[in-house]
Amino acid sequence: MEDCIFCKIIEGKIPSAKIYEDDRVICFLDIMPANKGHCLVIPKNHSKDLSDMKDEDAEAAIKVAKRVSKALSLSLGCQGFNLVMSNGLEAGQVVFHSHLHIVPRFKDDGLKIKWSHTKYKDGEMKEYAEKVKKFL
Amino acid sequence: MEDCIFCKIIEGKIPSAKIYEDDRVICFLDIMPANKGHCLVIPKNHSKDLSDMKDEDAEAAIKVAKRVSKALSLSLGCQGFNLVMSNGLEAGQVVFHSHLHIVPRFKDDGLKIKWSHTKYKDGEMKEYAEKVKKFL
Repeated sequence: MEDCIFCKIIEGKIPSAKIYEDDRVICFLDIMPANKGHCLVIPKNHSKDLSDMKDEDAEAAIKVAKRVSKALSLSLGCQGFNLVMSNGLEAGQVVFHSHLHIVPRFKDDGLKIKWSHTKYKDGEMKEYAEKVKKFL
Repeated sequence: MEDCIFCKIIEGKIPSAKIYEDDRVICFLDIMPANKGHCLVIPKNHSKDLSDMKDEDAEAAIKVAKRVSKALSLSLGCQGFNLVMSNGLEAGQVVFHSHLHIVPRFKDDGLKIKWSHTKYKDGEMKEYAEKVKKFL
């Protein structure tokens, strides 16, 4: 994709602090990290989000995320990590090339990656499940 | 795992609004949804987090997440979705059986799944990349 900043990173036209690369994916440090060590796993094939990704790319990305998360733990001593993927403008996606965030977490780092909750009315949860199942 | 609430859901000992099941994973609605339709994809093999998951389970989970996200879009008309996985207490994990959240997103739903940013000092980003790479 000509105007895609992540495609340019893949092609080496824009520099990045790359930590991993194979045939399908690359992983590099996010320049605006939630915590230092925060990185992005992206497929080399351009896709805009998870729905648009080839299964093989999604599989490769999650396997690399797993591997990188272990390396973050060993190298930086983080005690946990969040995996976050924003798909679509309404979900907060900014760069429209699929990317999986890996955010290393440390005790009392003050980051809040959580959300408020809503509630189902009586019987509504079952209705929702039925509705979604029809499309699976 | 005897005391694992998600293992009990898998075994059918605790009811759930299940929307998908295959040999490796199940998907059901979260009882404390960020938005209605919010669901969880979990592997049937007990593992505590992504680092602890078999590659095959992680691959199966992401493929099902992709499929479910499409069904959420078609059935609920959401415009986007977030994929979130909390790994470890410090990352906000509450149930220690690996689970991938799929949160459907709607225009102006008011949810904030984002984070504050920190900055690398000059040269520090490269140092971090080198540090992590040693363990990959």
